[in-house]
Amino acid sequence: MKPRLVALLAGALMLTVPGSASAHAVAANTPGLPGPHNAITDVPGIKVGQVQSARAPYLTGTTVIYTPTMSVTGVDQSGGAPATKETDLLDPLNSNPGVNAVMLGGSSMYGLSATDGIIRWLEERGEGVRVGSGVAPIVPAADIYDLGRGGDFKARTTPEWGYLAAQAAKEGPVRQGVVGGGTGARAGGLKGGVGTASMVLSDGTMVGAIVVVNSAGSPVDPRDCSLFAARYEVAGEFRGLETPKAKECRQEAKADAPSLNTTIAVVATNAPLEKAAAARMAGNTQDGLARAISPIHTLGDGDTIFGMSTGTGTPLRVNNPADSRRLNEIFNAATDTLTRATGHAMLNATSAGTTLSYCDRYPSACKKVQPLPQNKQGEAPEVTQASLVATAEKFRNAPAVPE
Amino acid sequence: MKPRLVALLAGALMLTVPGSASAHAVAANTPGLPGPHNAITDVPGIKVGQVQSARAPYLTGTTVIYTPTMSVTGVDQSGGAPATKETDLLDPLNSNPGVNAVMLGGSSMYGLSATDGIIRWLEERGEGVRVGSGVAPIVPAADIYDLGRGGDFKARTTPEWGYLAAQAAKEGPVRQGVVGGGTGARAGGLKGGVGTASMVLSDGTMVGAIVVVNSAGSPVDPRDCSLFAARYEVAGEFRGLETPKAKECRQEAKADAPSLNTTIAVVATNAPLEKAAAARMAGNTQDGLARAISPIHTLGDGDTIFGMSTGTGTPLRVNNPADSRRLNEIFNAATDTLTRATGHAMLNATSAGTTLSYCDRYPSACKKVQPLPQNKQGEAPEVTQASLVATAEKFRNAPAVPE
Repeated sequence: MKPRLVALLAGALMLTVPGSASAHAVAANTPGLPGPHNAITDVPGIKVGQVQSARAPYLTGTTVIYTPTMSVTGVDQSGGAPATKETDLLDPLNSNPGVNAVMLGGSSMYGLSATDGIIRWLEERGEGVRVGSGVAPIVPAADIYDLGRGGDFKARTTPEWGYLAAQAAKEGPVRQGVVGGGTGARAGGLKGGVGTASMVLSDGTMVGAIVVVNSAGSPVDPRDCSLFAARYEVAGEFRGLETPKAKECRQEAKADAPSLNTTIAVVATNAPLEKAAAARMAGNTQDGLARAISPIHTLGDGDTIFGMSTGTGTPLRVNNPADSRRLNEIFNAATDTLTRATGHAMLNATSAGTTLSYCDRYPSACKKVQPLPQNKQGEAPEVTQASLVATAEKFRNAPAVPE
Repeated sequence: MKPRLVALLAGALMLTVPGSASAHAVAANTPGLPGPHNAITDVPGIKVGQVQSARAPYLTGTTVIYTPTMSVTGVDQSGGAPATKETDLLDPLNSNPGVNAVMLGGSSMYGLSATDGIIRWLEERGEGVRVGSGVAPIVPAADIYDLGRGGDFKARTTPEWGYLAAQAAKEGPVRQGVVGGGTGARAGGLKGGVGTASMVLSDGTMVGAIVVVNSAGSPVDPRDCSLFAARYEVAGEFRGLETPKAKECRQEAKADAPSLNTTIAVVATNAPLEKAAAARMAGNTQDGLARAISPIHTLGDGDTIFGMSTGTGTPLRVNNPADSRRLNEIFNAATDTLTRATGHAMLNATSAGTTLSYCDRYPSACKKVQPLPQNKQGEAPEVTQASLVATAEKFRNAPAVPE
């Protein structure tokens, strides 16, 4: 039976207790259901750290997906206008054996500098590929376009933000909505943000996804103004989401001026994948974005997905027929999980300035949605001026240039 | 207004006369509606020829998309197990200025030989890139896996089939269902086949798609057994298709054993595209398959899409910001059009052997579906032994090898 079907059946059963706090506890480690936190951190070996500032003129932040034991990673870059770093070494033809972290950031190409802080934090801990007397931390990254959305084009993330995000990395619940790299996100004229989800496969393999939804296209079905992703709900995870009333749907949302956007994501599994399989997982999961957002992959989007494997042991290979069934099961589950994560991003987003959240734009869709319990919400500390200054102090340790 | 929305609104209006023979006549050249034939041949400069045999032990065939004045063409290859020919020259970094035809064939890697017959037919007419004293006809191709489905693994297409398909190429209505390259197709355990569709954009640009649906994944939504593609219907084009009764949906279709599959397509426009834009159109439209079929792009699929431009004049370029809006509009329309073509493939397919068509599997969904008028159905001649022999005779004209 395909995982999607298992999930749907399980979802139907769970719908008898939508939004109940016990639903996820019951779901833990049950095939076809989300993992205990319904988050990418359900994949063993994955930690997530996020910081942001939503105080004008800032509206941006940084999300770090950190793998303390490194992870085999591939990438698929499909949008027309990407802002990325260290993606070439992820080509299966190149020798990189794994990464320490992946950053999903705000502040577009400027914000790629935030990786410098993650690199510094990793170097302090001696983490990275061994080179000479030191380490070379490997931190690929993709950023969304959010420049100027807080009011000042120059209010951007810097290396300090990356350092603070890495420091905040932990297992457990992941904060969603207007946090981390999704702080300045918009999606089809609505407020975007960060979403995450996970899925347990029939053999116990875990897959997870985290996404920053910032698309030119819309996550809303124009026929009935439901979220496209709502169709992929598992186990009542959207906690009472409904199709909005027709009256709300008829109030046409104003079309955005054409703009630069970008949806970026990490999908991960604890199954051992060769590097080509990690890249293929990344590529296949672009289909999950296609189902959640329309259009996607436009010339103004830089849509990029990283595929990470934290598994050990003999890796599954794309050109080994004996591995095909299991790989397809993992790829398909990761694809659906990314679609679901997109739904969580939209539902957890809150209005910012004149940009309405989905729930504020279509209140009848969300009026029965129950909030996540406090202890399931996760944390994402706000960046403060004091924390930036204190971090910048730590950075002042370069060797002096000799006279 | 986005073309998708225009299309949906237009579709709503047209639904007052679903299935009426006049619907398409009214729709001709109206922005947001299909072109006069709702087929890829609505794109000026595109002809389609198809031949097949559905007589055991044969169940295979060939579809040719022929552009008499050549067309700028790109390709996107996204499935894990492709059978393709002449795709490398379509790379925008390579110098090929255009193609004469694209073949979408059956018989997997064996059937790629059918291109030899298309090439011969083109050479006889002096068509191809000028080289020395002759021409080099350019015929990229992708084939589906259908080997043995008619009962004999060796009953395959040959160069003669390609020649006959090229001979049959014409403008106007395109035959759909169990024809041409889709004769042996299956999709998620149901009978697959050939489908086509078109769309007129707001500036009069035409886009069209033709697809051979032969996916490992299913075109049917497991929640209610509707066709995924039905959501994208324009102007009542599915002629009365409904969601099947819940009772029929509960009868679980048996899962296929894992198999080799492949969905292949051509998307085309009469807008002038540079080669990179044609390739990007091909890549973006993989999203249209993702929306119509789940999963898609698996390791056992060789999903491949060709993007063709028959337009003349200054080409639209992906890295010219002034062209972005129009290119995105074309790409998005082509993506939706390919989704719709997938729906037509499933609806026009007829059961073959033990493989049920969608309409035979879910009769309540199709009981109100009105047939296309005879003069809109198009033609796809059956290959006969006599036609194969006569064609083979023509092929015996190679210069003698000197003693």
